[in-house]
Amino acid sequence: MSDRYWLERAWLGDRLEDGVLVTVEDGRFSSVEPGVATPAEAVRLAGLTLPGLANCHSHAFHRALRGRTQVRGTFWSWRERMYDLAGRLTPDTLFELARATYREMAAAGITTVGEFHYLHHDRDGRRHAEANATGLALVDAAREAGIRIALLDTCYLASGIGAPPEGVQRRFSDGTAEIWAERAESLASAVARRPDASAVVVGAAIHSVRAVPREALPTVASWATGREAPLHVHVSEQVGENEATRAAYGCTPTELLADAGALGPLTTAVHATHLTDRDVALLGSSATTVCACPTTERDLGDGVGPFRRLRDAGAPLSVGSDSHAVVDPFEELRAVELDERLVSQERGHWAAEELAAAATYDGHRSLGFADAGRIEVGARADLVTLDTASPRTAGTGATLGTVVFAASAADVTHVVVDGRVVSTGDSAEVGRELDRIVTRLWEDR
Amino acid sequence: MSDRYWLERAWLGDRLEDGVLVTVEDGRFSSVEPGVATPAEAVRLAGLTLPGLANCHSHAFHRALRGRTQVRGTFWSWRERMYDLAGRLTPDTLFELARATYREMAAAGITTVGEFHYLHHDRDGRRHAEANATGLALVDAAREAGIRIALLDTCYLASGIGAPPEGVQRRFSDGTAEIWAERAESLASAVARRPDASAVVVGAAIHSVRAVPREALPTVASWATGREAPLHVHVSEQVGENEATRAAYGCTPTELLADAGALGPLTTAVHATHLTDRDVALLGSSATTVCACPTTERDLGDGVGPFRRLRDAGAPLSVGSDSHAVVDPFEELRAVELDERLVSQERGHWAAEELAAAATYDGHRSLGFADAGRIEVGARADLVTLDTASPRTAGTGATLGTVVFAASAADVTHVVVDGRVVSTGDSAEVGRELDRIVTRLWEDR
Repeated sequence: MSDRYWLERAWLGDRLEDGVLVTVEDGRFSSVEPGVATPAEAVRLAGLTLPGLANCHSHAFHRALRGRTQVRGTFWSWRERMYDLAGRLTPDTLFELARATYREMAAAGITTVGEFHYLHHDRDGRRHAEANATGLALVDAAREAGIRIALLDTCYLASGIGAPPEGVQRRFSDGTAEIWAERAESLASAVARRPDASAVVVGAAIHSVRAVPREALPTVASWATGREAPLHVHVSEQVGENEATRAAYGCTPTELLADAGALGPLTTAVHATHLTDRDVALLGSSATTVCACPTTERDLGDGVGPFRRLRDAGAPLSVGSDSHAVVDPFEELRAVELDERLVSQERGHWAAEELAAAATYDGHRSLGFADAGRIEVGARADLVTLDTASPRTAGTGATLGTVVFAASAADVTHVVVDGRVVSTGDSAEVGRELDRIVTRLWEDR
Repeated sequence: MSDRYWLERAWLGDRLEDGVLVTVEDGRFSSVEPGVATPAEAVRLAGLTLPGLANCHSHAFHRALRGRTQVRGTFWSWRERMYDLAGRLTPDTLFELARATYREMAAAGITTVGEFHYLHHDRDGRRHAEANATGLALVDAAREAGIRIALLDTCYLASGIGAPPEGVQRRFSDGTAEIWAERAESLASAVARRPDASAVVVGAAIHSVRAVPREALPTVASWATGREAPLHVHVSEQVGENEATRAAYGCTPTELLADAGALGPLTTAVHATHLTDRDVALLGSSATTVCACPTTERDLGDGVGPFRRLRDAGAPLSVGSDSHAVVDPFEELRAVELDERLVSQERGHWAAEELAAAATYDGHRSLGFADAGRIEVGARADLVTLDTASPRTAGTGATLGTVVFAASAADVTHVVVDGRVVSTGDSAEVGRELDRIVTRLWEDR
């Protein structure tokens, strides 16, 4: 079965082309032909079409916190509210919330989510009858929303360096890295047996060097390396983490990860906000991807990471919506540039092409989907079409400047994932569903 | 003639109320009654309704720059591109562009625009046959878009301290402050004779202490004071301005304005980014309003102003979209808070109520419309209704937290200005019109 789309204008990863006729067979592009006049038999997508966008850092359940944590405090007081929410969820309510959140993502042009998943166990800290009930709920949620998922199964063993998990953190912990690895392996096997296995990558995550002791880091890293699976890790989001690491180990979190063999082209360092020059060099020379989450980093008062210096050192960029204070990949991209302007008082650190690459092929590669994020023959057939004459995008020339410096999630008019249409731009029902689910969660006090 | 609206939920300036029945007579609220069940005969506005929003700093023609200046450089290289555009416009094309821009604002919930207008003269620097042709074009544009305007007629006399206007700057200059005052007076008289005079305030602006010599400042200030009209001034947006002022006068721009009698409750300091402690005290103790333009300040790499410290010192906050890189009052409000988080690494500097006040009654007051920005008996009948269950706002509780930390211009579903409906949420045609006009402007090279 084949479909044909005619794209008024499209970004082909290295250039814009007008009149691009694409053919999709079995979920992949079988032909990509620029410079074609509107053909009679093809779905016509007006505006500017991009490849699929990768949201490389998500905690789906945080969506329920949006607008509800805006009080005086710090990252750490925000975390108390997040833990309150984490304590309420069951596999069923997590599924519902994640499905609605992923539908918000699909409507925003996100075709793959990287879910940094640590809410493993039951409310008393014991395993669910199906040990991976919550992880599989997230995979189900992505499938029903029509997007792909990289489920980054997260190892979380400690409340802080040398401190056991407490309170809701017991839901996160497997006790030891070996038990974590065994459960993660069983998740990967369960996923491999699913009919939708090709839309799922099982990867690993080290929650942070606060939550995974030094001696456990190599176990997680080698599990990922052995499977050639992505490995993600929160790195130096807060100054406090650096101070604790320095006090316990006499080095930075990045240095600790480097020593454990946890950096490299399959690794993604999330946030990477407060780094030394040596950290920048280590991440760059190992070709570790960096995942900026600027709308969350604004919201949580993290600070502005040295993403440009990291890129120049060799670390590719990706972006994520993380806490979902905002779900808008275009806002994430321009925030990378704009926040750098705020601290440097200069403009134009990133070319629009570099930022578009971060959200598309570099992002997809960092989630283990190296065959997605480009409109080219053989790639997964994702299409994200933007209205280039909305109040936001009008007059901006329908270029990558439009994408990065003017567009918003509200401008996405058509989304195709692996050849299937998952959004046609009317997201009213997505909002209604989210509202029902989140409101109910907070009412169940 | 009277209209009745039933507001599912509304912010009354000091509290949220459900089921608010309002009656509008002759463009003002004649009754405001909370706690009413849906009546049979009233327009029902679901969601959360706010008073009208004031966009306190606009250069309408900058809208044509959106997405087209994103190159390596600084504020000063950006200004070259802006001057290129300023050199092209005629009163007719300015009218068309401004009307389309103001329609974008109306659809975003903006009921009054403060237009900081300096593009006075013809392309050769001579007066138009009607000396205020461009100013009146802006007033016409606002009327056709259905919003009110504070036309802040801007005095601009110098290219820099001690340097005459050059190039396109000759379009900005009246030669002397006295000639500026005479022209501004003639504009005020012309506006007073218009049938729509009640929707227009003519105020004054000092472009900056770069562009208005010290000896000319009191002329502009006393013109505004004598008319009890608003006086706006760009202050310390860039470090370079501070350095030049220090070199020429041995003081800061704020100190220079204070000495000239240009600060006070009718004055608004726009940007106020790079201030000394003494500047903060001077602005605060004089009750000068500060206009933050954070999306432009991000775009131009200005830096983050000390808006919280200014508010604590006594300077009320307002917001503006300035260069229109973004036209979204909700994004401006949250950017005030979020950018402060980025530099402080703490959260919760501003209560949502304080930010909502900045965009509504404090903003309106700073533009000379003290009778707007509140839903109360006697006030101008403005209503701005938000969808509280869109993908962006869903689940956030329909509070002021929703407004400030989740909503976007795309969530505005209904806008009333002075009792007249100016938008019902479908802004597709607004975008198409903007696209036609801006595209044509850049094609006429």
